[in-house]
Amino acid sequence: MKRIAVDMDEVLADALSEHLTRYNRDHGELITKAQLHGKWLWDVVSADRHERLEGYLRSEDFFEDLPVLADSQEVLQKLSEHYEIFIATAAMEFPNSFGPKYRWLRRHFPFIPPTNYVFCGDKSILLADYLIDDTFRHFERFRGKGILFTAPHNAEITGVHRVAGWREIEKFFLPVGRA
Amino acid sequence: MKRIAVDMDEVLADALSEHLTRYNRDHGELITKAQLHGKWLWDVVSADRHERLEGYLRSEDFFEDLPVLADSQEVLQKLSEHYEIFIATAAMEFPNSFGPKYRWLRRHFPFIPPTNYVFCGDKSILLADYLIDDTFRHFERFRGKGILFTAPHNAEITGVHRVAGWREIEKFFLPVGRA
Repeated sequence: MKRIAVDMDEVLADALSEHLTRYNRDHGELITKAQLHGKWLWDVVSADRHERLEGYLRSEDFFEDLPVLADSQEVLQKLSEHYEIFIATAAMEFPNSFGPKYRWLRRHFPFIPPTNYVFCGDKSILLADYLIDDTFRHFERFRGKGILFTAPHNAEITGVHRVAGWREIEKFFLPVGRA
Repeated sequence: MKRIAVDMDEVLADALSEHLTRYNRDHGELITKAQLHGKWLWDVVSADRHERLEGYLRSEDFFEDLPVLADSQEVLQKLSEHYEIFIATAAMEFPNSFGPKYRWLRRHFPFIPPTNYVFCGDKSILLADYLIDDTFRHFERFRGKGILFTAPHNAEITGVHRVAGWREIEKFFLPVGRA
């Protein structure tokens, strides 16, 4: 059985929407996802506010209640019948996120056992056939095939297999007749 | 650079001593490590107390202040000059342990960056050349070479490369002339 490692933020969990909501609310701004084409949020927020941007991610409740990305539950459940699924999230920068991320996965993806969660920093440690991730640099030392999940910040990246959402992942991994 | 994955409990952190101390204190017993030859603590404690044994591991402070195993800091620091070191701990059974384990590693092994911590359940996800672990079953699906770190519960296991402590690990990975 082939193994797929799946990133969490911006692939399963819509952390960017929550980040924008909190930042806009506290600073009276109206930054949208559309403005972030090819950019990280850090690129459009003035440098003197970067510390605050980080602060949201460090807060106890940030990762507790994120929206689930469209179709991810249904497609991942189907995939889990044909592939070994691991959730691999780079949690080491924000140790406060461990508990919330664990609870969020239990709540929204109950069909994936906790033994298949991996909280890591450097994803080159993963032994998997595929890695679905929105951050291109994780593919650089990954031994399997990287699949880039479209997010505003990676819009300009080329030369990698890209998917725009979970329906495209379904088509790639479960061609007609197999699902 | 070859990569070594190192387990945490009973390899770096003496969790068993803490477990015995708490259990003996609360139940007026005097179970020693010597009595655990070839056995898990669960095997010598009556079944009606297994829930309590588990309870210690779930408590917030259990993993916060564990003793460091002899020579592990010095040898691991030397190894980190010649090998890529990852700490891989099966933390998913006890989600309360994430924070304490993270802080413990930062405090006692500051030369290992948090990007190289891996909190997982199934260690077959690790891509490494070696895995030093006290639990034999983690070697079954591991693709590299397993090195069994002696602990009471694994005393009877044969047919695997075994080390009795960190000085033996030093000899294996850093033969004379290389250290």
